[in-house]
Amino acid sequence: MQTVKYPQKGQEYIEITKRATSNTSEITERVKTILQDVQQNGDAALKSFSEKFDKVQLETFQVSNNEIKEAIALVPEELKKAIQTAYQNIEKFHQQQVPTINVIETTIGVKCWRQNSAISNVGIYIPGGTAPLFSTVLMLAIPAKIAGCQNIVLCSPPNLEGKIHEAILYTANLCGVTQIYKVGGAQAVASLAYGTESIPKVDKIFGPGNQYVTIAKQLVNVAGTAIDMPAGPSEVLVIGDKNANADFIAADLLAQSEHGTDSQSIFVTDSEDKLKEVEIAILQQLELLPRKEITKKALENARLVLLNNLDECMDFSNFYAPEHLIIQTDNADELAQKVINAGSVFIGAYSPESAGDYASGTNHTLPTHGFATAYSGVSLDSFVKKITFQKLSKEGLKNIGETVEIMASYEALDAHKNSVTIRLNAKTNQD
Amino acid sequence: MQTVKYPQKGQEYIEITKRATSNTSEITERVKTILQDVQQNGDAALKSFSEKFDKVQLETFQVSNNEIKEAIALVPEELKKAIQTAYQNIEKFHQQQVPTINVIETTIGVKCWRQNSAISNVGIYIPGGTAPLFSTVLMLAIPAKIAGCQNIVLCSPPNLEGKIHEAILYTANLCGVTQIYKVGGAQAVASLAYGTESIPKVDKIFGPGNQYVTIAKQLVNVAGTAIDMPAGPSEVLVIGDKNANADFIAADLLAQSEHGTDSQSIFVTDSEDKLKEVEIAILQQLELLPRKEITKKALENARLVLLNNLDECMDFSNFYAPEHLIIQTDNADELAQKVINAGSVFIGAYSPESAGDYASGTNHTLPTHGFATAYSGVSLDSFVKKITFQKLSKEGLKNIGETVEIMASYEALDAHKNSVTIRLNAKTNQD
Repeated sequence: MQTVKYPQKGQEYIEITKRATSNTSEITERVKTILQDVQQNGDAALKSFSEKFDKVQLETFQVSNNEIKEAIALVPEELKKAIQTAYQNIEKFHQQQVPTINVIETTIGVKCWRQNSAISNVGIYIPGGTAPLFSTVLMLAIPAKIAGCQNIVLCSPPNLEGKIHEAILYTANLCGVTQIYKVGGAQAVASLAYGTESIPKVDKIFGPGNQYVTIAKQLVNVAGTAIDMPAGPSEVLVIGDKNANADFIAADLLAQSEHGTDSQSIFVTDSEDKLKEVEIAILQQLELLPRKEITKKALENARLVLLNNLDECMDFSNFYAPEHLIIQTDNADELAQKVINAGSVFIGAYSPESAGDYASGTNHTLPTHGFATAYSGVSLDSFVKKITFQKLSKEGLKNIGETVEIMASYEALDAHKNSVTIRLNAKTNQD
Repeated sequence: MQTVKYPQKGQEYIEITKRATSNTSEITERVKTILQDVQQNGDAALKSFSEKFDKVQLETFQVSNNEIKEAIALVPEELKKAIQTAYQNIEKFHQQQVPTINVIETTIGVKCWRQNSAISNVGIYIPGGTAPLFSTVLMLAIPAKIAGCQNIVLCSPPNLEGKIHEAILYTANLCGVTQIYKVGGAQAVASLAYGTESIPKVDKIFGPGNQYVTIAKQLVNVAGTAIDMPAGPSEVLVIGDKNANADFIAADLLAQSEHGTDSQSIFVTDSEDKLKEVEIAILQQLELLPRKEITKKALENARLVLLNNLDECMDFSNFYAPEHLIIQTDNADELAQKVINAGSVFIGAYSPESAGDYASGTNHTLPTHGFATAYSGVSLDSFVKKITFQKLSKEGLKNIGETVEIMASYEALDAHKNSVTIRLNAKTNQD
């Protein structure tokens, strides 16, 4: 943890808010080789990668209905119930994002509107590892289902027994995922981007992952497959005032830090006492955590920042553009109105980030690494195209025809002009 | 023009719908050098690029208020009036995209909502060349202004006299562009991405351009600056039935083809007679066009496709995913309901693409090259982040607390669990 008192805007802010970066050029070369291999050799490449990376021999990649049935039986009831409760809230929040069609008559006879059209084929990547990230399945598959995506394809690496964790399979089945494949890493991204004999090519790829997955997504994106957003380590910024509960704040900072050693937690306050209290509370709570080592290492990236007042705290936050912003101040509602850059905002003492990570209803796939300056988190919008439609009557075209003709003419696009003129001059009975 | 009768789905569709691609590796290397030079040497690099590429020596890059005043005086009244009419329609359509805030109580005491926050700094690139693309200024600056972007920075290359065309300056001023710079090409993209002594760094870059600009946008995107969308040559697909007006269709196909030699126009019909009529009409109208040479060359990419029925025509269109789709059939409204992949759709005989290119109100910055399968055109959404907010009361946290605790526990994230537990157990008077 680094404590910084009254830093100056400019260079000092830049120094404090630096994110962890890593040299990726070596990994990039390795990922390129993997992508190429999958593109050229399809399933055969996947089989050899599975042996190499997952240490397991697979005959087929698709999870069978029987495997799903087995998984459903294995998930404890308390977890099923929790997942279902989260499902309902996430569905409720994302369902509200379905727009009503609003036809605008911009000029008499000129009707324009937008309509959502689902992205037909979407891919969801769920990392493997010790803990099953079934919450991310909820966050990606629920909006995909609401959008009406035809194929919702999930890839996740198999364990040493050639299986995907039962909680992931249970959740994927609950959410209407249409196909599930036991493929992980950059080779999963390659499969989704190019398609193989057994895995269908998709139009857009979603989901978190390690550096291999992240770089693979970036590379296939440049080559033409859409992705959810650029990714970086997870992060939180908490603003607290003198009346904030230091234990709550410490718990939130530690929750962020347990994600990985490159996670970043920042506490910003206008109260020097609170700065000290939070520091002490962090050290106390840390001792009780199972993931103490990861968390301790991540705390090296943590910052406790003292500023002159709460508006300055919010300016600092907007400069940092945090993935998660928690506001624990007496004037939290008012401060929340001043948020310019953030992924998701948690207002008040009883809104911990973990509520939004799992079950409040908002999406937890959010822009990191300062991308909150320009990117939104995942929402229903991420799974649709908003297509514009327009219908002009003959009268409508008459009303804007001259405008189009003049503008086209000054842009030296005479065929554009002519496509209006020919209609206005036509002696037809069409309308 | 290539005529194809009754092609089969699968390989034949793939062949017919192939877009023009070009080998870009050589250009990519040149663009990388330009980006690096601007990043390292700022304005000095821009000055030397201006001498080299624009053949003009510039002392300063920013367009002065006096230059804007002069430009306003130079624009003919008829063009001003046309631009203003288009402005009103575009503003009306995009203004309607401002959402109302909708607070969802997903569970009692758990309130969640989304709120638009403008991207603070946006850059708009407008290409130079013989014709001034003031219409693109309208399409990008109007939604930026409605969104509330603080800095709307426009770059466009200077002509041999060191000026930007008066119609571009007039339109930029009308739309509330905050700064205008005489910089073009990849070096303009670099300036917007990294900032120089005189040009501010932006968060997102919009606008069309040649291959250098397109590749520069792609490269700065991978490095962290958001961009509007990947770009490719412009294209139209027209569906017409036996009652469609062949002259109108020919005019629309030619309008697309005059954009550039790599533009693509496709006509799909269920009527063999109409196929022939349209072909004849194209050849007749072509003779009268000033940009005949470009258009003729682009027509080499054109396809006239005969299919069995109109539903098959729509399937073909969805497979192609055209930037622009024009439906000139008796059942146009019905067919429009079946659009899955397209940028913008023009319904009926009196809705030429050029209406939407200029003045109907819809945006003309649209996904090309098949990206309409996963990307939307530019809209107000492109200039904002949709930030999620949540506020839980103590009761709200109690209602979903156990759900969060159980899920966090199964994901092995105990500090996440603890951030809820510590609040539920706290004996405070906060609520």
